[in-house]
Amino acid sequence: MTEAEPGGPDPARTRGEDLAERTRGGERRALARLLTEVEDRSRAAESALRILYPLAGAAHLVGVTGAPGAGKSTLVAALVGEARKAGRAVAVLAIDPSSPITGGAILGDRVRMQAYAGDSDVFIRSMASRGHVGGLATSTVAAAAVLDAAGFPLVFIETVGTGQSEVEVAAIADTTLVVQAPEMGDEVQAIKAGLLEVADIVVVNKADRPGADRAASHLRSMLTVGAQHDRAMCDRPRPKRPEVLLASGATGQGIPEVLASLDRHEAKRRAAGSGEGADGTRLARAEAQVWGILSERLRGRVREPERATETEAILRAVADHELDPYAAADRLLEAFTRR
Amino acid sequence: MTEAEPGGPDPARTRGEDLAERTRGGERRALARLLTEVEDRSRAAESALRILYPLAGAAHLVGVTGAPGAGKSTLVAALVGEARKAGRAVAVLAIDPSSPITGGAILGDRVRMQAYAGDSDVFIRSMASRGHVGGLATSTVAAAAVLDAAGFPLVFIETVGTGQSEVEVAAIADTTLVVQAPEMGDEVQAIKAGLLEVADIVVVNKADRPGADRAASHLRSMLTVGAQHDRAMCDRPRPKRPEVLLASGATGQGIPEVLASLDRHEAKRRAAGSGEGADGTRLARAEAQVWGILSERLRGRVREPERATETEAILRAVADHELDPYAAADRLLEAFTRR
Repeated sequence: MTEAEPGGPDPARTRGEDLAERTRGGERRALARLLTEVEDRSRAAESALRILYPLAGAAHLVGVTGAPGAGKSTLVAALVGEARKAGRAVAVLAIDPSSPITGGAILGDRVRMQAYAGDSDVFIRSMASRGHVGGLATSTVAAAAVLDAAGFPLVFIETVGTGQSEVEVAAIADTTLVVQAPEMGDEVQAIKAGLLEVADIVVVNKADRPGADRAASHLRSMLTVGAQHDRAMCDRPRPKRPEVLLASGATGQGIPEVLASLDRHEAKRRAAGSGEGADGTRLARAEAQVWGILSERLRGRVREPERATETEAILRAVADHELDPYAAADRLLEAFTRR
Repeated sequence: MTEAEPGGPDPARTRGEDLAERTRGGERRALARLLTEVEDRSRAAESALRILYPLAGAAHLVGVTGAPGAGKSTLVAALVGEARKAGRAVAVLAIDPSSPITGGAILGDRVRMQAYAGDSDVFIRSMASRGHVGGLATSTVAAAAVLDAAGFPLVFIETVGTGQSEVEVAAIADTTLVVQAPEMGDEVQAIKAGLLEVADIVVVNKADRPGADRAASHLRSMLTVGAQHDRAMCDRPRPKRPEVLLASGATGQGIPEVLASLDRHEAKRRAAGSGEGADGTRLARAEAQVWGILSERLRGRVREPERATETEAILRAVADHELDPYAAADRLLEAFTRR
């Protein structure tokens, strides 16, 4: 859009445009291939996204997070089944911190999803961070936009861990569902509090197990106390007051209610419109995505051949404690604007 | 350093300089106050760091990470005790994803550290992310530099979770110690693989429990397979081949050996010098820190009054899928350079 192209068409760009076209046309292999390009942050992905992004915006993006062992994958599989009963197409993005040692996917129970292997209206995909530090949110938003433009009206974004970046990834969804097992220990109970801040809906999973009702009441009272605390202590009231539901991914108990709650949350968002103040999540998502791209562009710029030596020398001086990092940042900022 | 000061001294700057001076002088209250300023990323913190950063570089920064329940805090407490026996001053930075609901620290067993409450050569501090998304590494490096300049030769940086950002924080240390309990389940076993990539030393903690020896052998064989895989598949060999040690934070078993291993790792790093190729961690740390500051500066710049309206409109257009995020990034990049 902004770059000149000396000497004929750019092959990466052509490939991206081709993948975008075929993805829009419903070709699942092209979709899979394009998501790999998105993961790799290739130039083909960029040219495809420039076409597909304006076509996206219709899908409901549901973030699913929670401590390991809470039963997220089982719950998502059950929700996919429930949506399929109503004929809805569904995509699942499983955010997966891959490892060169294990060689990739660590989610053993993703296997349950294989029930949908022959169903072209269900698309399941693991996304790895591939060492793009801090940029997982950018890739995830891009992948969700691709699935959205490919015609999936419902996209689950499932994260593995409960670290800061996983919480961020879950929080870029339209609706964030936090999954909680009833018998978690104290430490995890506490960690959960970090998750509750981003939750629109909390599901106490494994509702058939003893203690599930008590866990749900405990959560509801924690959330009430939290809201009171916020009203008393904070400048502005807490925007979210999550609903707490009991369900079981394994037995199917409560699953229609969870899907109905997701749909209600989305309907409310849409009714609020896109005016000033409304829909802060979509604005935050846009910002995260644009900022991720911008950071990459800027990193690229200081690494350009004519600046790389200067940049390297500045960073080396900071590493050797000869230059303070603020002065270094100011020098690099000056190098950006000098062009 | 680069900003002009119209109309007399800047109070934030004066406060920062004062805190830096008193921190260097060994005043623990000033140190604690300065770390709060660092957490808040205040302008006082910036002016203090501009003074202290060049005085830092002597400390050995040890990152400690591992799954919840692996016994990180107990192990760190034992290592602090061991270092104190030799008369060494020690600081501990506990990286803590705080929550408005729980109101802060979630590490119950941090209480064990209170044994050192009267010892001015032990300094323990929790650091919260305070919603500075993606910038925890920047704050942590800055806090570590403050402790370094305050004269602590050994600084432990302990993280809570096993998410991507926690792994990143651990990886910015000179030496990264990964703590593993012997009886973890399969899922955690696999997640651990993400941690092994950043490990210099792996401690199988709770060595008195059954299965500890087997867990250590299993880890050693995984690491051997990993190294073989890397040699076969990767362009360059895996830089790290972590040592695996058995210890118990609770009983003290193996603790002197872990401290000795940390010291050996640091001695090796220092012997390698700061020449080309050596000491990549310190360079990576400098880069993370400078990049964090630079990102804040740039975010600040697009939010400046004369640009805020334009920035807001661009982000809103992306949120509404009227503009693709790459085009948006290019427009904002143009706005930076126009000045």
